[in-house]
Amino acid sequence: MTFKSFHPPVRTLMGPGPSDVNPRVLAAMSRPTIGHLDPVFVDMMDEMKGLLQYAFQTRNALTLPVSAPGSAGMETCFVNLVQPGDTVVVCANGVFGGRMKENVERCGATPVMVEDEWGKPVDPQKLEDALKAHPQASTVAFVHAETSTGACSDVKTLTDIAHRHGCLVIVDSVTGLGGVELRVDDWGVDAIYSGSQKCLSCTPGLSPVSFNEAAVERIKSRKHKVQSWFLDLSLVMGYWGGGTKRAYHHTAPINALYALHESLVVLQEEGLENAWARHRAQHEALKAGLDTMGLSMIVAPEHRLPQLNAVKVPAGVDEAAVRKLLLDEFNLEIGAGLGPLAGKVWRIGLMGYGANRKNVLFCLGALETALVAQGADIVPGRAVAAARAVYGA
Amino acid sequence: MTFKSFHPPVRTLMGPGPSDVNPRVLAAMSRPTIGHLDPVFVDMMDEMKGLLQYAFQTRNALTLPVSAPGSAGMETCFVNLVQPGDTVVVCANGVFGGRMKENVERCGATPVMVEDEWGKPVDPQKLEDALKAHPQASTVAFVHAETSTGACSDVKTLTDIAHRHGCLVIVDSVTGLGGVELRVDDWGVDAIYSGSQKCLSCTPGLSPVSFNEAAVERIKSRKHKVQSWFLDLSLVMGYWGGGTKRAYHHTAPINALYALHESLVVLQEEGLENAWARHRAQHEALKAGLDTMGLSMIVAPEHRLPQLNAVKVPAGVDEAAVRKLLLDEFNLEIGAGLGPLAGKVWRIGLMGYGANRKNVLFCLGALETALVAQGADIVPGRAVAAARAVYGA
Repeated sequence: MTFKSFHPPVRTLMGPGPSDVNPRVLAAMSRPTIGHLDPVFVDMMDEMKGLLQYAFQTRNALTLPVSAPGSAGMETCFVNLVQPGDTVVVCANGVFGGRMKENVERCGATPVMVEDEWGKPVDPQKLEDALKAHPQASTVAFVHAETSTGACSDVKTLTDIAHRHGCLVIVDSVTGLGGVELRVDDWGVDAIYSGSQKCLSCTPGLSPVSFNEAAVERIKSRKHKVQSWFLDLSLVMGYWGGGTKRAYHHTAPINALYALHESLVVLQEEGLENAWARHRAQHEALKAGLDTMGLSMIVAPEHRLPQLNAVKVPAGVDEAAVRKLLLDEFNLEIGAGLGPLAGKVWRIGLMGYGANRKNVLFCLGALETALVAQGADIVPGRAVAAARAVYGA
Repeated sequence: MTFKSFHPPVRTLMGPGPSDVNPRVLAAMSRPTIGHLDPVFVDMMDEMKGLLQYAFQTRNALTLPVSAPGSAGMETCFVNLVQPGDTVVVCANGVFGGRMKENVERCGATPVMVEDEWGKPVDPQKLEDALKAHPQASTVAFVHAETSTGACSDVKTLTDIAHRHGCLVIVDSVTGLGGVELRVDDWGVDAIYSGSQKCLSCTPGLSPVSFNEAAVERIKSRKHKVQSWFLDLSLVMGYWGGGTKRAYHHTAPINALYALHESLVVLQEEGLENAWARHRAQHEALKAGLDTMGLSMIVAPEHRLPQLNAVKVPAGVDEAAVRKLLLDEFNLEIGAGLGPLAGKVWRIGLMGYGANRKNVLFCLGALETALVAQGADIVPGRAVAAARAVYGA
């Protein structure tokens, strides 16, 4: 069998990520590869750290992109901060809490689960109760922005509770970073991981992480070696640790890092608060359009992530057929539901570069068409008009 | 602090990798991002498997690119095939054998080291002796193509010995794949990992791996869960396992996979045997040029990798100053020595797209200049002439 060059179609990516990539990021990605110990590259790594510190709103020295997707960023946090025999309270209100549990178990530690309904934020009272019942717990893990549901949890409140009980926190903000308020230092977050392919509008494959002094102290005082050589921060820091002397650990994904650097430069140019406001504004317009079609969200307004809209599939509508029509006829990708929400919701992403008027209006128009094709009682054009009204047009 | 877009210099990469990237690969990398569950992307994944099977010369169904650099490919092999309490014979003749030992220990297993001098291939007799002395061993791990020294070990002979003693083999061919003969099925290799950034001329960040039926059987019969969630092949296969139904495991690094696909298409167009012959021919030309400068290799001719030339630094020459001059004045990167070879060798890579006449002649001319600047007694132009003679010019 012989194969030819691959030429992907041009899609509009409005699912749970990867999101639409900024053309500046794609251009950066194809710049000439240089060596991972090249002095020019090392300077770029220092800039990367500064840019990530800005995005996370932190001064943490241990702030870097893990050379693999968000799942590896998650694993970096767990394998470095959790040791065999530890007890870790894991708050689960969607897919990613369950994945954290898997990580805890594979570290030889015991997870204590705090469960909330999918679509709800983590309940601080349940966390408080769990920590009272398990005073031996050393760590609390929870998701800031649940990609599977679109629910936003209160990072500061949960972190305060964990700290009062002597625990460090591990926070998943894969979908949060760059899209919604996140203040790592002000909120006291000990360890956090994110992903390149959501609100940073970069290509998938990298996972920004940040660790504060308390987390670094814990890593330094470990009794067991970190079970992963690749993700062992005591080794990774020999390369990412700053200064002109960098020790080879692994070959960094050079071009992917060019892309992440560019996406963070774009974020800095816009300003973090402006980016958060833009996500909110586009969400309001999308919401207004969805309202006209009688479509509602599964998350209550006060806990909703603007960048991830989990929309209930109306009775009698074939959710997969709608997604297929959008993909085939509009080159538009929206996401399906996961786990207990499979078949029950669509997930419409408004992330980073993709959180713009064109995408909102295009998506609403396409969705109207798809629902009419399903026999829904919709007047085409009303959704787009409602969104335009929000924009003040 | 504000940062601007990063524009790297245009280097010629003739170190131990990353190697010069084919412009077709860079172009592929910047094509539009699509979703990791897009049906068009899933078709590309199937092609990727076929292309990797060709490169590895295998029919192994479990052949895929790990979504992270070669170090993660190494870890994928160890964490899936080794369990706590196992004994693993590790052959070390350079940096990467030592890294394998770390992996074995972090799996809770016991490494038995078979040491050979850096620059020598693995000695089959020493492996035989170690297996006789440690009949409980379940696995043998060794490096096909040692990037730190340029020594090529005899994969078939070592694999036969391991199998006679009832062991599976894990083979590191990060620098081997695409540059020198490698026949996974004919040689009976059980598990192998490589990297994208060496003789495949792709950007760094991905690690092709392949596992035969015996390896898959061992994975299926594990008593302990794989300690890494991210690298657990029983989960990864839900996504890469073929068929139209793909389960989300992690978000694949879409654009990096475009790049690897293109690099493998280029390899298939050339033909694997032709690529091996090209590496050999360019090595012969480089060697002829180095001879005229009185420069010699640390590896004996019969064990030399054409793609990685470890050249002895002559007495009285400042090796770092030579590399700095090459980088600053010629934008040419060659590699330094690692471990016991630090300061004693340069590593000149002729990998993939970079194994061409232009690079060989350019490198020889630049090296002449740098050595003359160091006061060496060299007649400029002779090295280039000697290389041209090899080409039959």
